[in-house]
Amino acid sequence: MAVGSTYKVVELVGSSSESLQEAIDGAIARAAQTIRNLDWFEVREIRGTIDDGHANWYQVKMGLGFRVDGGEDIRED
Amino acid sequence: MAVGSTYKVVELVGSSSESLQEAIDGAIARAAQTIRNLDWFEVREIRGTIDDGHANWYQVKMGLGFRVDGGEDIRED
Amino acid sequence: MAVGSTYKVVELVGSSSESLQEAIDGAIARAAQTIRNLDWFEVREIRGTIDDGHANWYQVKMGLGFRVDGGEDIRED
Amino acid sequence: MAVGSTYKVVELVGSSSESLQEAIDGAIARAAQTIRNLDWFEVREIRGTIDDGHANWYQVKMGLGFRVDGGEDIRED
Amino acid sequence: MAVGSTYKVVELVGSSSESLQEAIDGAIARAAQTIRNLDWFEVREIRGTIDDGHANWYQVKMGLGFRVDGGEDIRED
Amino acid sequence: MAVGSTYKVVELVGSSSESLQEAIDGAIARAAQTIRNLDWFEVREIRGTIDDGHANWYQVKMGLGFRVDGGEDIRED
Amino acid sequence: MAVGSTYKVVELVGSSSESLQEAIDGAIARAAQTIRNLDWFEVREIRGTIDDGHANWYQVKMGLGFRVDGGEDIRED
Amino acid sequence: MAVGSTYKVVELVGSSSESLQEAIDGAIARAAQTIRNLDWFEVREIRGTIDDGHANWYQVKMGLGFRVDGGEDIRED
Amino acid sequence: MAVGSTYKVVELVGSSSESLQEAIDGAIARAAQTIRNLDWFEVREIRGTIDDGHANWYQVKMGLGFRVDGGEDIRED
Amino acid sequence: MAVGSTYKVVELVGSSSESLQEAIDGAIARAAQTIRNLDWFEVREIRGTIDDGHANWYQVKMGLGFRVDGGEDIRED
Amino acid sequence: MAVGSTYKVVELVGSSSESLQEAIDGAIARAAQTIRNLDWFEVREIRGTIDDGHANWYQVKMGLGFRVDGGEDIRED
Amino acid sequence: MAVGSTYKVVELVGSSSESLQEAIDGAIARAAQTIRNLDWFEVREIRGTIDDGHANWYQVKMGLGFRVDGGEDIRED
Repeated sequence: MAVGSTYKVVELVGSSSESLQEAIDGAIARAAQTIRNLDWFEVREIRGTIDDGHANWYQVKMGLGFRVDGGEDIRED
Repeated sequence: MAVGSTYKVVELVGSSSESLQEAIDGAIARAAQTIRNLDWFEVREIRGTIDDGHANWYQVKMGLGFRVDGGEDIRED
Repeated sequence: MAVGSTYKVVELVGSSSESLQEAIDGAIARAAQTIRNLDWFEVREIRGTIDDGHANWYQVKMGLGFRVDGGEDIRED
Repeated sequence: MAVGSTYKVVELVGSSSESLQEAIDGAIARAAQTIRNLDWFEVREIRGTIDDGHANWYQVKMGLGFRVDGGEDIRED
Repeated sequence: MAVGSTYKVVELVGSSSESLQEAIDGAIARAAQTIRNLDWFEVREIRGTIDDGHANWYQVKMGLGFRVDGGEDIRED
Repeated sequence: MAVGSTYKVVELVGSSSESLQEAIDGAIARAAQTIRNLDWFEVREIRGTIDDGHANWYQVKMGLGFRVDGGEDIRED
Repeated sequence: MAVGSTYKVVELVGSSSESLQEAIDGAIARAAQTIRNLDWFEVREIRGTIDDGHANWYQVKMGLGFRVDGGEDIRED
Repeated sequence: MAVGSTYKVVELVGSSSESLQEAIDGAIARAAQTIRNLDWFEVREIRGTIDDGHANWYQVKMGLGFRVDGGEDIRED
Repeated sequence: MAVGSTYKVVELVGSSSESLQEAIDGAIARAAQTIRNLDWFEVREIRGTIDDGHANWYQVKMGLGFRVDGGEDIRED
Repeated sequence: MAVGSTYKVVELVGSSSESLQEAIDGAIARAAQTIRNLDWFEVREIRGTIDDGHANWYQVKMGLGFRVDGGEDIRED
Repeated sequence: MAVGSTYKVVELVGSSSESLQEAIDGAIARAAQTIRNLDWFEVREIRGTIDDGHANWYQVKMGLGFRVDGGEDIRED
Repeated sequence: MAVGSTYKVVELVGSSSESLQEAIDGAIARAAQTIRNLDWFEVREIRGTIDDGHANWYQVKMGLGFRVDGGEDIRED
């Protein structure tokens, strides 16, 4: 029997008025407030909104993967 | 520092014996029972089951996006 | 009104040092510890890590679908 | 030995001058005239033709899956 | 020399507070106000916005194809 | 009730030692020997085999769509 | 004139209660009962159903390609 | 400040009764009648119609990219 | 009758010798010179050219969506 | 132990001022100058450049597969 | 300056007469004969050939990633 | 005979602890150490690893295209 860890991937959209980079970092920081064992991120979509001729929000949709601890209730992730 | 809100996207499948439209609306209504700040939906897949030569269930898989409040525990979404 | 059940799909990555099959079964077993009504799985990505010239972990990313009970809080899935 | 049923998927395009829904239902009904064990449908493409400024045909391309009976000649599906 | 007609495809998003169907029909009707020779449509994305727990706008992104007349200035399409 | 025709799409791979074009035309001609009402084709994949440093076969995988007549047995297509 | 053989691709779903491998082999064996000249297979989708916390059916959707003989009626494939 | 040129991509479908190649060339020639600075093309879809057992039209959908001049009105492209 | 606004999506490629971010912002600013009601952008492709071992141009292909005013001629967008 | 041959796939872009066909053949011929055991090709992208209103280069991106001989150093492919 | 390692991804197809798993392991083992620092694999395509009604070769196309050492000549990978 | 240059595309992953931009530039710079005629890059995937609640590595997978010189041995690229 060689089953390893199980990881869960939640889909978040980070947003920033400044840049793509900050939108990514912001979502990771927000997730880290309540999720342990964050392990990787995958960018899935980059879009944003425009106001008065300028991008006012950069929005990056990402999968964030984290290891589910042994006893942890997957329903809560 | 201009990080904006963080949004979470959960994947639901709505089902209806009547129509695609009702399957979409049903899933949104079900999610709204327990999720605040529902903001948008994205249709990802349309399928269904057939019984006795007729579609008996229309099933629409969707991503539903909602804003995560400041203190909210992302693990619970 | 003919709205049917609503299903939720969570994204898990199973891992095994032995095989793809075991990685799939391991993730399903882990999810079943805390999620009732597990109904189907969809393989989304197959990858893995290599150490010393051999695959040391097979990793299968899957969507796992389950029926959300009437009163259940979707936020917890 | 635990091989289960084998299913075949045929690709049909239903069409209706009224709606997407009717195009789906029409193709399923037509298939059911000659195919037993119809089990599921998957929508693959939604398009249509326009005449005089209005959609005159809604066309939905779908995969229709059905169980192949033991002795049945797959060539005929 | 057997070159046939050239067609142009513009990308529109129709929206309706009622249904997917109406969102499709609305965009076609709007395009028909200013584009001759509309020939076909292709659905590319179905999404929408949610307000107060209900879909308030259904949004269907479509390609609309039309024949470019001989002398017509493609830049204007 | 405004259901229109139902069309079936079969997937063929045409092959030619000369060119892509001939591979496409060859598959259509072969299908036309036994299928009435052929209506359209969609190219899905272009590949081929190489022998002695040259492409010896060009292979084009295509969907071929045709109208299913009223009484026709879809199982035979 | 250098047109080569024409091949047809039928879409089957094999299923097994044991493994992915067996689901693949089962569908090929079932097709071979009635189709000559089977030449290749392409895996298109891997999914399955879950019962009582375990995968009870592994389902592999595949394209199976075979050469259509000269006189053969493509409608029957 | 190092912003470079902005390019616009219009989507055209070229058609020919002879060949794929001619369908591509025909659409480029048609666009060149009214668009300056045409720079590149990307093939997006290859399909066609069949009449009397032969391809009567080869249709190639392409993106055509061109540089937007400084003062040019993007609305006109 | 609850048809909402119709939006048009034009495809632009922004370019910058400095960064991805500037390529995005540059294309939005260029579009805003002649298009009112710009509402959102979707990144579709990120590529660029290399000269003398360095990226000399970062190129981001994007869809830019804007609301079509009531009387506006869609042909001009 | 039933491991078969290992194949490597290199990605090449062939180009021709004449046609798609010649771009494909040119890349295969170029690869054959230095790669033994070339076995198959897969077309991945068709694009090209435009000059003075005409396609001046047709560019076809392809995967070329070849068998890696027993002792051969994969790093060199 | 925080640039990290650069990794190269080569595309290999492993084959086995026994199973998918063995095809994967076989390609990794073959690559490991000549490539140091193999780090991960990604499955990109699963197909195979059929002979006499049975799968005679299982073929798995994979990307294999490895770290490029400081002085190493990328051309050789 | 109008065959043009042949280009090869290698797949690299650049990584940086700072930003996406730097990950892209780092991989290009690394490739330029040993590859002449680098011509373009295509971003294929953006992901990264997370440590202690922050992105510690941004990883960008890219195709890098370069012209193969007349006499050059494609095996070495």
